[in-house]
Order: sequence, then C-alpha cells, then structure tokens
Amino acid sequence: MVERLIQSGHEVRVSDLYAMQWKATLDADDFSHIEPGAHFDPVTDSLRAVEAGTQRDDVAAEQAKLLWADTVIFQFPMWWYTMPAILKGWIDRVYAYGFAYGVGEHSDTHWGDRFGQGVMSGKRAMLVVTTGGWASHYSARGINGPMEDLLFPIHHGVLYYPGFDVLPPYVVYRTGKVDAPAYSKITEELGQRLDTLWTTEPIPFRPQNFGDYDIPALTLRDEIAPGESGFAVHTAPKKNENAR
Amino acid sequence: MVERLIQSGHEVRVSDLYAMQWKATLDADDFSHIEPGAHFDPVTDSLRAVEAGTQRDDVAAEQAKLLWADTVIFQFPMWWYTMPAILKGWIDRVYAYGFAYGVGEHSDTHWGDRFGQGVMSGKRAMLVVTTGGWASHYSARGINGPMEDLLFPIHHGVLYYPGFDVLPPYVVYRTGKVDAPAYSKITEELGQRLDTLWTTEPIPFRPQNFGDYDIPALTLRDEIAPGESGFAVHTAPKKNENAR
Repeated sequence: MVERLIQSGHEVRVSDLYAMQWKATLDADDFSHIEPGAHFDPVTDSLRAVEAGTQRDDVAAEQAKLLWADTVIFQFPMWWYTMPAILKGWIDRVYAYGFAYGVGEHSDTHWGDRFGQGVMSGKRAMLVVTTGGWASHYSARGINGPMEDLLFPIHHGVLYYPGFDVLPPYVVYRTGKVDAPAYSKITEELGQRLDTLWTTEPIPFRPQNFGDYDIPALTLRDEIAPGESGFAVHTAPKKNENAR
Repeated sequence: MVERLIQSGHEVRVSDLYAMQWKATLDADDFSHIEPGAHFDPVTDSLRAVEAGTQRDDVAAEQAKLLWADTVIFQFPMWWYTMPAILKGWIDRVYAYGFAYGVGEHSDTHWGDRFGQGVMSGKRAMLVVTTGGWASHYSARGINGPMEDLLFPIHHGVLYYPGFDVLPPYVVYRTGKVDAPAYSKITEELGQRLDTLWTTEPIPFRPQNFGDYDIPALTLRDEIAPGESGFAVHTAPKKNENAR
C-alpha cells in the first residue's frame, strides 16, 4: 500500500501501532495535571489537556498526523467482530475531547460539530480489513452479521463523527488461506482502490445538523425513510437508486 | 452490584481491569516460546501456549475465573460505540485459541463448538453499559444506531460465541447527569436485574449447529425468516410473538 501510494505521488506517513508499542489504555497516566489518587474523568481531563497543551507527546503526534493528512487508511485484522484493542486504544486516546468530540455549539438547530462536521471535514478515510472467516459468514444472512453492519459503528461512529468522508471498505476474507494468485488479485484490487481514493464516492451518510434529524432527540425525522429503522436509515439512498 | 449479589448469597470475584493495570495488547510478549524477532501469529501462538500450559499468569487467572463463575457481568462505559480498549484487550487475550475459539470438530454438520456451544455453555452473561448520550440517540431511528444493534457484536459475537446464555443488557443513559433520585432508581432497577439473573429469559439467539444454518456457508437457511437480513435474523422470535 505504501509503495503504491508513493508511486502515485502521495506522501505517506505510517503509524504502525505494534512497532510503536502504542499505549492502548486511556488512563490517568495520560494527564500530567492529575494528582495521585485524584478522580480520573476521561472527558474533563481530556479537555483540560487539550486546552492547556499538555497532552502526551504520543497523542499529540498522532493528532498532528491526522491534521496533516488528506486521506487516512486504517488497516487491521478483525478480532472478535471489531478492531484489536491496540487500535481501539488509539481511537480512545487520540480522539480527545475538544479535538474529535465536544466541539461546536449546542443549540436547538446544531448539536455539536459531528456526524458530517468536525476537525476531519474535507478529509477522507477508508478501512482495510482482514478476516479469518469466509465472505458468506459475513453476508446479509451470514451468522457473523453483515460486514457493513459490523463496520457501521466504525464508519459512522468513529470516522464520519469527526467529519471524515468515508469510502467503502476493502475487505479480505479467509486471509489465512491467501495463496500467491489470491495475493496478486488482492494487490491489484486494493491498488485500484488506492488509485481512486479521490474519485470513489463516499458512503452517503446523512449529516446531523442539516435538517434530517430532530434536535436534540437526534432521531431521523418521520418523513425520511418512514417506518424504517436500524443502521441503514442513516445512509441516504444512492443517487441512482429509487427512493426506498 | 457486589453488595447486592453477596446479600443474595452469591460469591463474587471482581476483575477491575484499571486497578489490575491489565495489559491490553495481545502481542508477542504474551508467549514465552516466541524467539526474538520471530513471526508472531496470534492464532497459532495462542493455541501453542494453551496446549503447553505456558500462557501468561494474568490470562490463565482470568480464564480460571470464567470457568469458576456461573454468571459473568461485564460493566463498562460505551466509548466510541463499543467497549474501551482495556476491555477489548481482555477479550483479545483471555479468549485464547483452544479455549474460547478453535474448539470442537469441523464437519459438514458441525462447524466448531461456537454460537451456542463452547467452554461457557451453561453459564450466563450480561452487559451493564453506561453512556453519555441520550436514550433517544440510541433508539430505533436515533443517530447513533439502535443500542441493541451496537451491542450485537458483543452479545452474539463475544458472549454467545463461546456458549454463554446472554441476558438483556442494563443500560444507563446520560450517565454524567445522574443525580440522587436517578441513582436510586438505577440502583433499584439494576438490583432487580441482579436478583433475577437466573429467572430472566436469555436473548434467543439461534444456535449454529442444530439445523438453522447451512454449513459451511453459515448462512441462515432460506426457509427461516425468509427474505430478511441483518443482525435481527439471528435472534428467534420470542415464544409470545407470531412468526415473522
């Protein structure tokens, strides 16, 4: 992936969390202002560190990388139907209050800069996911649940939330069984995805603050996708689909 | 919760992951047999340690607690639409290959002891979850997605997978705003849930190896919930509901 992106003229910065021995747990050690034995509140302590510029260097460096990038690719193996702990801990720590959440006004027409607005506005993000299981296990009626629903909390709740435009994921199934021909095919397909990062249509999630949702209940308005519920209602029909 | 359970005659063992400074990341340091610089494969290395009895003490102790318990309660705040990294890392590390997965025969009628079978068979599990957001944000058409769908990968993929019977969760919304009357109400409601752990009906997930699924595709058979898809098809209608 790095080679392909560089060949296309991109600059690439890599955060290899295992190689970096990334600290996975958001805890009181993240905040120099907490007195020993004092109460730890991840929300208010996070905000205080952001405002005072006293975040830990590892967290601040990752935030700077995010601000520098125009596109962010998250690559991970699916473990227990979501990302490994080390990557979840990257989210928990780098997504500080006052940076990725808790930003923007809260009023009766605007409930924070989130779900389509926020610090990552104008940037794109994409997941590259490997699984041990088969594609059928993750299909619409597969026992694991549909892949798009398993990824929804990441796509919508982690990436769209602070403003990323989210591209469809690239998923490799039965990764342990990939042989040389399969590897070539994956390299080609994924390469195509990397070549088209800026022409691929993002997932059309519905923005929060532009009329689709009642505020502050944050429920989809009755006249939109009437009678439907679940993750799918938060994605608008594609332009070439008929209204549902 | 501990007091209430003890008052009811239960024995209780607590794993307070923050107090234990639980190691969140599953990595090569978990396995004494890995030579420095050698390839790390979480699946095969995990199996090798289980079979040789060389797992790390912290992991083996948690597995022993699971085997000892008849009921396991997981209590956590929802961070970014799922559990914090430290608890995900408990799953990643304690759920070893040969313990929680990779057990049982694989044939054309049985695809491992999982989803209704496994080491936790006969035990019950329940989530107790706190959120900052409002209940409406997590309702059927709420912007975060329905709480039951957000919890499905944990209920079904983490708990039901190794054999737990999974009780409905107890969820506290707007936790930061809980005042004394709300705290009393929560204490009473949660206490009732603890008093009825063994009379509450588990979520009726469909077992994998008893005819509902085609094997090895692991897709729900066409005649069950025909035409439906998504997480919900893996839960059987309650006995007092009409067939869907």
